[in-house]
Amino acid sequence: MENSFLAGTIIIYIICALAVGASIALAVYLIKWVKEQKNENKEIERIADLIRSGADAFMRREYMALGVFAGIIAILIFVFLPRPIWLASSIANNLKMSIAYICGTIFSAIAGKVGIFVASLANARCAEAASKGVKPAFLIGFRGGAVMGLLVVGSCLLGVMGVMIFVGDASVLLGFSFGASSLALFAKAGGGIFTKTADVSADLVGKVELNIPEDDPRNPAVIADNVGDNVGDVAGMGADLFDSNVASMSAAIVMASALDGGTGKNVMMVFCYAALGLIASIIGILTAKIDENGSPSKALNNSTYFTTGSFLVLTALATLIFGFDWRIWGASAVGLMVGVVIGLATNFFTDDNMPIVKKVAHASKTGPAFTILSGVSYGFLSVLPAMVGIAFSALVAYKLCETIGSGYGMFGISMSAVGMLSIVGMIISNDAFGPIVDNARGLAEMGGLGEETIRVADELDSAGNTVKAVTKGFAIGAAGLTVIALLGAFISEVNVTVIELGLGVERLLTGFNLIDPTVFFGTLVGAAIPAVFSAMLILGVDKNAQRMIKEIHRQFDEIKGLKEGVPGVEPEYNKCIDIATTGALKELVPAGLMSIIATLLVGFIGGVNAVGGFLLGNIVTGLLLALFMSNAGGIWDNSKKYIEAGNEGGKGSRAHKAAVIGDTVGDPFKDTSGPSINTQITVVSLVASLMASIFLQFSIF
Amino acid sequence: MENSFLAGTIIIYIICALAVGASIALAVYLIKWVKEQKNENKEIERIADLIRSGADAFMRREYMALGVFAGIIAILIFVFLPRPIWLASSIANNLKMSIAYICGTIFSAIAGKVGIFVASLANARCAEAASKGVKPAFLIGFRGGAVMGLLVVGSCLLGVMGVMIFVGDASVLLGFSFGASSLALFAKAGGGIFTKTADVSADLVGKVELNIPEDDPRNPAVIADNVGDNVGDVAGMGADLFDSNVASMSAAIVMASALDGGTGKNVMMVFCYAALGLIASIIGILTAKIDENGSPSKALNNSTYFTTGSFLVLTALATLIFGFDWRIWGASAVGLMVGVVIGLATNFFTDDNMPIVKKVAHASKTGPAFTILSGVSYGFLSVLPAMVGIAFSALVAYKLCETIGSGYGMFGISMSAVGMLSIVGMIISNDAFGPIVDNARGLAEMGGLGEETIRVADELDSAGNTVKAVTKGFAIGAAGLTVIALLGAFISEVNVTVIELGLGVERLLTGFNLIDPTVFFGTLVGAAIPAVFSAMLILGVDKNAQRMIKEIHRQFDEIKGLKEGVPGVEPEYNKCIDIATTGALKELVPAGLMSIIATLLVGFIGGVNAVGGFLLGNIVTGLLLALFMSNAGGIWDNSKKYIEAGNEGGKGSRAHKAAVIGDTVGDPFKDTSGPSINTQITVVSLVASLMASIFLQFSIF
Repeated sequence: MENSFLAGTIIIYIICALAVGASIALAVYLIKWVKEQKNENKEIERIADLIRSGADAFMRREYMALGVFAGIIAILIFVFLPRPIWLASSIANNLKMSIAYICGTIFSAIAGKVGIFVASLANARCAEAASKGVKPAFLIGFRGGAVMGLLVVGSCLLGVMGVMIFVGDASVLLGFSFGASSLALFAKAGGGIFTKTADVSADLVGKVELNIPEDDPRNPAVIADNVGDNVGDVAGMGADLFDSNVASMSAAIVMASALDGGTGKNVMMVFCYAALGLIASIIGILTAKIDENGSPSKALNNSTYFTTGSFLVLTALATLIFGFDWRIWGASAVGLMVGVVIGLATNFFTDDNMPIVKKVAHASKTGPAFTILSGVSYGFLSVLPAMVGIAFSALVAYKLCETIGSGYGMFGISMSAVGMLSIVGMIISNDAFGPIVDNARGLAEMGGLGEETIRVADELDSAGNTVKAVTKGFAIGAAGLTVIALLGAFISEVNVTVIELGLGVERLLTGFNLIDPTVFFGTLVGAAIPAVFSAMLILGVDKNAQRMIKEIHRQFDEIKGLKEGVPGVEPEYNKCIDIATTGALKELVPAGLMSIIATLLVGFIGGVNAVGGFLLGNIVTGLLLALFMSNAGGIWDNSKKYIEAGNEGGKGSRAHKAAVIGDTVGDPFKDTSGPSINTQITVVSLVASLMASIFLQFSIF
Repeated sequence: MENSFLAGTIIIYIICALAVGASIALAVYLIKWVKEQKNENKEIERIADLIRSGADAFMRREYMALGVFAGIIAILIFVFLPRPIWLASSIANNLKMSIAYICGTIFSAIAGKVGIFVASLANARCAEAASKGVKPAFLIGFRGGAVMGLLVVGSCLLGVMGVMIFVGDASVLLGFSFGASSLALFAKAGGGIFTKTADVSADLVGKVELNIPEDDPRNPAVIADNVGDNVGDVAGMGADLFDSNVASMSAAIVMASALDGGTGKNVMMVFCYAALGLIASIIGILTAKIDENGSPSKALNNSTYFTTGSFLVLTALATLIFGFDWRIWGASAVGLMVGVVIGLATNFFTDDNMPIVKKVAHASKTGPAFTILSGVSYGFLSVLPAMVGIAFSALVAYKLCETIGSGYGMFGISMSAVGMLSIVGMIISNDAFGPIVDNARGLAEMGGLGEETIRVADELDSAGNTVKAVTKGFAIGAAGLTVIALLGAFISEVNVTVIELGLGVERLLTGFNLIDPTVFFGTLVGAAIPAVFSAMLILGVDKNAQRMIKEIHRQFDEIKGLKEGVPGVEPEYNKCIDIATTGALKELVPAGLMSIIATLLVGFIGGVNAVGGFLLGNIVTGLLLALFMSNAGGIWDNSKKYIEAGNEGGKGSRAHKAAVIGDTVGDPFKDTSGPSINTQITVVSLVASLMASIFLQFSIF
């Protein structure tokens, strides 16, 4: 530790502790506030209870499966990492790594659990409030979502701080981060399969076959569909961003430690920026407001911009006070600005007030093939701004910081990722708003709250969709920068091992040469993985949906009076939830294992160089496919909504039928495979970093 | 020149000359043979004439547009390459480069023109012969296609030999190769837009709106559709493989020259292998045969295997006689074997006797969204064997050859590409078989040759489709290896310039470091280009089809008696051909320019390092998307055919309607954007190599 910075270190840790404390306190206050809102409609309460218990059932099963998985991984980590236990001087390091891993899963799990809990309280209250107008309903939806945002970022900072204070070894952070990733893989991919299984099956039997409305309570899959919104979008997205956030901080701290030792100025800068990002998000959440008849999507976007501005001002002040390097501030500012630009570009492609969605809606008049072709085309076009943006911010951050000294270029990139993720608290709040108001819309319909209330809920739902597209772009961009930073962390880990084991300076990595055939080999294989991973998840949804459709048909056939809507006759909602749950876990595991095993195979065949290429190939096509799928899905979804709003022939027209097909294709794209690729990339990067020393010692080439 | 190898050099040039002579002589013989076949049905002859003149009209317009484009590029090359003219000691090199470029376009154009000519003779004769059974019809289709195969490979070898004998400078080959690529871009992407515009419009109005059969002569777009098969699949695929073949030879010769000077042993090995590949293809073509009721797809595949075996044996003999290095033989053998494996894997995914196509057909029963989702998923899965195969052959070739000496690793990869492309004469023959029999099927229907004849033609058509999928996989794999080799050529070019201009040894490239931010910047931008390029082409088809559909509607509305089929009333076929032609050229140019301009921008911003990354990113996602699109398209096409054969409900069923939508989506995937990406990758690689010295001197970073 640089003693000269001791005072700064203490002050920054205090700021972090205050930020964490404030975020938890605010979350507790918001939970209380949401609970106090009116909730008097018995029918809505009954259905909300069904959703809550369905979500609980899924989470319990998911966490149990994860528990087994995490237990096995924790044991493997204990035996092999950071060094095989028979080669290590003491078991202390292995134990620390293993415990950090478990803490990573638990922290993320708790945040997800509480987030779901609040969301399932907020949905019913939001539905009731919608009868009084946009303003009260908006506030409940937003504050319910904010709990998740606050808890995710607060617990992330708390966990990382805990590891650094109690263990003091940056590489243990990678274990913590891997724990968060494991959970994210289950929550995001598992939740994604669950939610789309339910959504697709409910729509296909309900809307297409029987021609009953979207949220009709006769449909046995309707509760599962609403549960899916919660587990996929609230818990899944939260876990995903928890994961990215931890990973970006970990990568930055690993590199900062290599630059200035355990807790020097650079490490503290990472903490300081993260804490200020959390504080900026708290400010944004507290100041979010909407006028009596204001636009909810504007209100959400305004809070995001306000948070962004606050972060830039606060970090500039901190840089001035603590004497951090302004070039690093520049790197993180560039990251954040590019994040905003990616969000805006996503908005351009997926918002139904913009030309692209209208064009796809228009093409739908010629038939579903043109819905698909134009959606695929614009989806592909939409990757350009984000890819160029990420490339640009990495280039600028590196070039800006490399003048500080050797190794600072890569650190600059990691700070760019930290910058992009700094306002993640606000992003998650906006994102969790979506499923809450989506649920509220369903509850308003099922509870018979009348057309005007449904219209208000629809308006909120549409804002939720638009904002979701933006936050997804943000999340993917941040994951991109983060994994680039993890590539740097991987090199750091390899070199630390080379020195510790005395393998000779010629084995120190200075990078990966593209035309080294092992690097190239890794790149091509790594590039194929996201495609295979997505395919497995989509096929998983497909298989699972077939099972559920069979069950829905069975219920309509066997339960007398269900189809006709005889009062008192109810479908067996739980059976559908069961099928979605079991299937999701069953389909998710092979996809997750495939990507981990591919990493291990490449590492044992081609060694650390092949792994470097593997990570690059994985990042490049992963980003491409994640952006493509999320955006194409968003375009189709909103084209359908645009037509349903009365354009191009409106509901029931030829264009509408085509748009519904497009939306069905887009659903697993945007809610299952697209966003899960983020997690896949991070998992693979962390596996590589953790296994670095093993690959270094045992590989064929 | 190593004098000790002078005798070998002379012998090998003689072998090359004999192979070229034999291929041209055989082509001339086959043209004569095809012409002599019976062609008596007047109605068929009349329609075949319409197709022929339509194809001529398109080719004329295309070549005129290309002429303007090539003229501009030739002038630019003369002014700037290999050195800006005001910096060069004499204009001789610039003139040579410029002339080589023009020769590249002309050689490829002639081969394409003759190929189309024969195909449009063979189609009518094949249709008539089909009334006598599979055997005679097969022979006409196959031999008609073989003309194209022989001419492409013969003229490629002739051109490359001409440049090396008359100019003797390997880097001028890159100019020749760029000429071939320019033509391929027009032929493949332009032809691809043309063919799918016509196909999609004809199907949409004919089959979907009016419910008339596929090749009904009342449909104004039906001739354009048949013209499209010729210009897209015969001329387009031929130009594409001419391009890959020249590029792979050029890359290998550039590297061989760097290893052993102008015309040393390694250069001669490239020539020798190429000539033996041509001879093996001639043997394969001569021995192709089918039993009276044999399976045409088996016959085609058997000739491919026989050609493969002949090549391996012939090159082994040559290696023994001329004393070439066996490790290099190994590299090219691995390339060829991997090519065969990629072909088999493609077959597994796209053949309708295999499980995948059946699964997609089965999923279609649930509706078109599931056709699309399962096709996309299996399309993504299908990239894995090819990507791993290419990675594997590059790794093995490099590791095998690097023990020979410095620089031989990369040369090994280029020889692996030469090996994979060695049997390209056979591949093109098989490929051109497809559109000929497809046309024949249409002619048999339009000429009223009766059901049995149509059944025979259908059988040939189906074999053509299966084989086409395999050759496409082969072409993409070969393009992949070739551009890797071009990456090596790019480095050679940069280093030659560094030495010539005396820029200092520290600027010599030893490769590209992935974590160099300029490389990384280039990689991400390069990775986005194939996606954007595909999107532009697909949107081009879409726009063009809208124009053509309008025209078809106009004709049915305005031409009295057309819809009812009053004898003597004919649609205005030429108007549709005009629209397809004009639109294709209009939509193609922006996509081509976009990829070239992106390369220049990246080069001028980030210099040669960024370009290296750009090429890698471009190769990786280009391969991924090309494989995905070609295979997904093949899966959908054959699923539709599988259902039409009476499975899953057969024609007119719900599954069939869904499969038709899948096929319409797949059409531009597999025939426009997918295979055009090959060409896009090659064009970009060649632009990069040609501009290497300019980027080296003028760039921001």
